[in-house]
Amino acid sequence: MNREELIAQIKIKQSFLCVGLDPDLEKIPKHLLDCEDPIFEFNKAIIDATKDFTVAYKPNTAFYECHGSKGWESLAKTIDYIPSDCFVIADAKRGDIGNTSSYYAKTFFETINCDAITVAPYMGEDSVSPFLSYENKWVVLLALTSNKGALDFQMLQDKTGIRLYEHVIKASSKWGNPDNLMYVVGATRAEEIQQVRALAPESFFLVPGIGAQGGSLEEVAKYGWGKDCALLVNSSRGIIYASNDVDFSEKARHEAKKLQQEMANILVIKGMF
Amino acid sequence: MNREELIAQIKIKQSFLCVGLDPDLEKIPKHLLDCEDPIFEFNKAIIDATKDFTVAYKPNTAFYECHGSKGWESLAKTIDYIPSDCFVIADAKRGDIGNTSSYYAKTFFETINCDAITVAPYMGEDSVSPFLSYENKWVVLLALTSNKGALDFQMLQDKTGIRLYEHVIKASSKWGNPDNLMYVVGATRAEEIQQVRALAPESFFLVPGIGAQGGSLEEVAKYGWGKDCALLVNSSRGIIYASNDVDFSEKARHEAKKLQQEMANILVIKGMF
Repeated sequence: MNREELIAQIKIKQSFLCVGLDPDLEKIPKHLLDCEDPIFEFNKAIIDATKDFTVAYKPNTAFYECHGSKGWESLAKTIDYIPSDCFVIADAKRGDIGNTSSYYAKTFFETINCDAITVAPYMGEDSVSPFLSYENKWVVLLALTSNKGALDFQMLQDKTGIRLYEHVIKASSKWGNPDNLMYVVGATRAEEIQQVRALAPESFFLVPGIGAQGGSLEEVAKYGWGKDCALLVNSSRGIIYASNDVDFSEKARHEAKKLQQEMANILVIKGMF
Repeated sequence: MNREELIAQIKIKQSFLCVGLDPDLEKIPKHLLDCEDPIFEFNKAIIDATKDFTVAYKPNTAFYECHGSKGWESLAKTIDYIPSDCFVIADAKRGDIGNTSSYYAKTFFETINCDAITVAPYMGEDSVSPFLSYENKWVVLLALTSNKGALDFQMLQDKTGIRLYEHVIKASSKWGNPDNLMYVVGATRAEEIQQVRALAPESFFLVPGIGAQGGSLEEVAKYGWGKDCALLVNSSRGIIYASNDVDFSEKARHEAKKLQQEMANILVIKGMF
């Protein structure tokens, strides 16, 4: 999916919601555990319930890999099941020397047909660029993450006061462009989002951290708004585990709809219609 | 495998060689492609041929994942096949928020029984610590990598001249210790290895970059030697693709033996016997 198509979906669905598909056998409803593939059945129900309100899905590979090859089958089936009008982000946080990154790109853009993959920037340009060589595919590069550990290295300043995450954004903007490169910017650091936005006015931000991690949608929109919205705000646990009973998909739909309605209001205020 | 056992293996085999298992269907001998699981058959032959000369194996997950669930089966079979006296490093370069990293730890330390996993430090302490909570399991943290992109961020200096990779080593030495934390230090930056060693005199370094990437074993030993050796020097392509014909395992054995003999000489000179 390219940028224009993604923006069109945001307008059609009046939403910039991304639903994180992080299925955990200890948290999904017990009645699903008897299915042959509980993870896929759970995801299928969540996708059916939320697809009207979300423009993107973000399966996190950790929750699939922990089940070995069976988990990778569940992941592949899930990605196949996601409707073609939704943007699919493999939250995989890969990144290796160029030769190896090209195999990760093959994995997530060919073997399983994702639109985007999250990539860690530590190893620099040649670890990122193999992912950028695919047409209509995206890198979502870690910039300023939502967790406590973001403070350990991402905020380090060089002699002129430029922080590491700023270096990551400045350097990577030469490797890719707003048509194939997004950034992860955590909702838990709302005021810093503004500084990131100043560095990358057109780039999409994938914003985790609202809900379970404590970030606010209103603040994200206030500080992070970019050209044509340029935000994908993720919620995982707040939607998919809204209930762990037989009504889980209904409750997930309710939570997704609630966020979508808040987003629709923001899109109106921001003049997207 | 704990530190004492790893050092004992280095003494028994007179080797600090790690063989990278990066099977690529375009590079492995053609006659293996008719097997049901060419990747496993290739690895099995490489392991049989090299196990006398190597103390560690390092499968890189990218080369398995690109085949989807089938690739993960090949990976699991490979890890099961590696003899128990060899240290197994999943070269996976994972790292995510704490809750997610704990699932990656489960993947590589429980679902497949590796001794160690490579981890990217960008997301800080809570992205690394879940891997450190397992007894006799290891994190191999990216510090100074062997690729060109290492210069993009890892060498950035703060106001006092401390580089990012030095921050990574200093901070992480509070999260773990030389019994559960190693560092990736590339052979292509031999003189900088000395500076890294000064910061972490007891920690094992996993050193990629000799052979295909241009690093020298002699220089690595000269600049990188630590307490009880504390080096695992990796070779992937130089060993496993020494030949792509029917004699591939014989040639791999030859290359591994050659490196082991150089290493035995170094171990003698350094007084390990």
